[in-house]
Amino acid sequence: MTEFIPPASRFFPLPSPLSFKRGGALIGARLAYETWGRLSPARDNAILILTGLSPDAHAASHPDDPRPGWWEAMLGPGKPIDSERWFVICINSLGSCKGSTGPASIDPATGEPYRLDFPDLSIEDGADAAHALVGALGIERLACLIGCSMGGMTALAYLLRHPGAAHSHINVSGSARALPFSIAIRSLQREAIRLDPNWREGRYDDTCYPENGMRMARKLGVITYRSALEWHGRFGRVRLDSDRRPDDDPFGLEFEVESYLEGHARRFVRQFDPNCYLYLSRSMDWFDAADYAPPEAGRGNVEAALGQIRLRRALAIGVETDILFPLQQQEEIADGLMRGGSDSQFLPLPSPQGHDAFLVDFSRFGPAIAAFLASL
Amino acid sequence: MTEFIPPASRFFPLPSPLSFKRGGALIGARLAYETWGRLSPARDNAILILTGLSPDAHAASHPDDPRPGWWEAMLGPGKPIDSERWFVICINSLGSCKGSTGPASIDPATGEPYRLDFPDLSIEDGADAAHALVGALGIERLACLIGCSMGGMTALAYLLRHPGAAHSHINVSGSARALPFSIAIRSLQREAIRLDPNWREGRYDDTCYPENGMRMARKLGVITYRSALEWHGRFGRVRLDSDRRPDDDPFGLEFEVESYLEGHARRFVRQFDPNCYLYLSRSMDWFDAADYAPPEAGRGNVEAALGQIRLRRALAIGVETDILFPLQQQEEIADGLMRGGSDSQFLPLPSPQGHDAFLVDFSRFGPAIAAFLASL
Repeated sequence: MTEFIPPASRFFPLPSPLSFKRGGALIGARLAYETWGRLSPARDNAILILTGLSPDAHAASHPDDPRPGWWEAMLGPGKPIDSERWFVICINSLGSCKGSTGPASIDPATGEPYRLDFPDLSIEDGADAAHALVGALGIERLACLIGCSMGGMTALAYLLRHPGAAHSHINVSGSARALPFSIAIRSLQREAIRLDPNWREGRYDDTCYPENGMRMARKLGVITYRSALEWHGRFGRVRLDSDRRPDDDPFGLEFEVESYLEGHARRFVRQFDPNCYLYLSRSMDWFDAADYAPPEAGRGNVEAALGQIRLRRALAIGVETDILFPLQQQEEIADGLMRGGSDSQFLPLPSPQGHDAFLVDFSRFGPAIAAFLASL
Repeated sequence: MTEFIPPASRFFPLPSPLSFKRGGALIGARLAYETWGRLSPARDNAILILTGLSPDAHAASHPDDPRPGWWEAMLGPGKPIDSERWFVICINSLGSCKGSTGPASIDPATGEPYRLDFPDLSIEDGADAAHALVGALGIERLACLIGCSMGGMTALAYLLRHPGAAHSHINVSGSARALPFSIAIRSLQREAIRLDPNWREGRYDDTCYPENGMRMARKLGVITYRSALEWHGRFGRVRLDSDRRPDDDPFGLEFEVESYLEGHARRFVRQFDPNCYLYLSRSMDWFDAADYAPPEAGRGNVEAALGQIRLRRALAIGVETDILFPLQQQEEIADGLMRGGSDSQFLPLPSPQGHDAFLVDFSRFGPAIAAFLASL
């Protein structure tokens, strides 16, 4: 049971016990985080970044850890999220395995990993934990809260549960609730892990590890994170050279696109804990901002829920080719936040890279985020 | 090892040995088929229907088998494919398990199922077998060749390899070649089956059966056969009643959409042979009409290949919400056939049901197909 903790992580001891929204509590839990830039004397220049399902807190290089981070092109001195102006915090999500407490962490009560004894994790638990860290850093109100993908859900939970906690918000390829197509995809990913005989109801170890289940889950993820359009241009029907094909497997890899998926999967399967994956994935299915709608708005009214959030400015960015968090979901966020009086903008981008565009299409995402932050 | 043969199937003994495009041959192979209506004395009113991956030849009820077929609303007296005017043939694809010879059939040389000793199956092998049957029925030229989904590929192979074999053609949600998104999906479906420990390199039986792999493959299929739009309207975030939820499984079914997928999968896993699934699925990845392009057209030129087909009329129908055989692929077919001088029409339909729309959205597909056939 391995955790994957970036070397320059800082750790915030969460309130103990830490009660979970759906019941249960953790003793001695922590969040891993990293920071860039300096907090201003007025403590009014803080940006918090909430990540997608799998990234760690190492969003970009810094003197203590010069390795490139997962948002290297976006964050740093002179970059769209300019660490010369902003004090930037990135958190490894609660429930993850990259320094923050999650199902792969040791339960101090037993000395063993929590595994499936970890409490049912909600998006809201991650949001509340992040809010506790921000408060402990002496920040009463964020200048901007940025959430990407799953982090876009966490950010909305943060804003809904902690009124006045941010001046502005950028929601990047996020959604206010999971819809059935993405629920179906994630449900199938979880089923692939759970059906792997090595999963053993969560009691795997490094030698008996649900590698095949994780491989399937990751491949399905990558398929839905990208777009048919991009792959058509990138791979077409190109086949692997014969020396890269398995000799004796009649159903083995043949096309470049299959090899690409296999490579992605191999890099991932041992770098993310399967139980953590299950917990985080399920938390996304459960999240529905409409749970916060005022009673008079009627059930399922996302925009009425978001309309309670008071922000000065908001930006919801999405991508035309995203099939997992489709553009209508970012439009819904922008519309909902506008109801609350925010100067709220919906920005659809024509990136071909699908849901993952925010991780690669910096020529579009960079200027959009830079312009928003510059205007604050 | 079960085959699933509709009771009123007729059988056509294929030429023996039957050589396969990629090598290998079958002895004593057959095609299962059913027919509707009567062949005219001039033998000029025949329509052949080539199916998607899984259907049998029982496209519609008839006196010998009154059970509804998979295209019941489309085919029969007075229906869009009117069996009072047309003599209609539907074939169970070569390589399937519903009466035609496939990997689950008994190899007469060994008395055992072929399993992975079945020759590598191409779309072209299915097309050639279908053409042999049509000839044996005394039909020199089809009035119309209809191919749906995989059958749309088979139909193009039929027309490319047998010049003059049809007066007209309807390509329903088909494609002229597999593109990387659909290859990736099918590759993952095959991997799910192959990773099931019960698959045993194809040597499963009814008691040791790759049920989990088939379940995963089918769920992924259903996800890609439908559309996010349809599911949003149909399932939303509705949860199962508590009495339909597993009590003791923390990651068990919770949302209606998960239950819908589970139901589909359960109905399928024992009704389709896993090895047949692997062979048919792979044949789709391999198919590329551009293989038939004249040398001077340059590699990969689908339209130049299709431009060699001589038809009087053609119709390529597709659906805006189809992510597996996207609309551009039907447009490519229509454009290519037009190059060959066909009066060729591309008809995009706004059905919300995705790739499966042709199986359910009869209010759109019915009139389109009826009008085309009426004009012949």
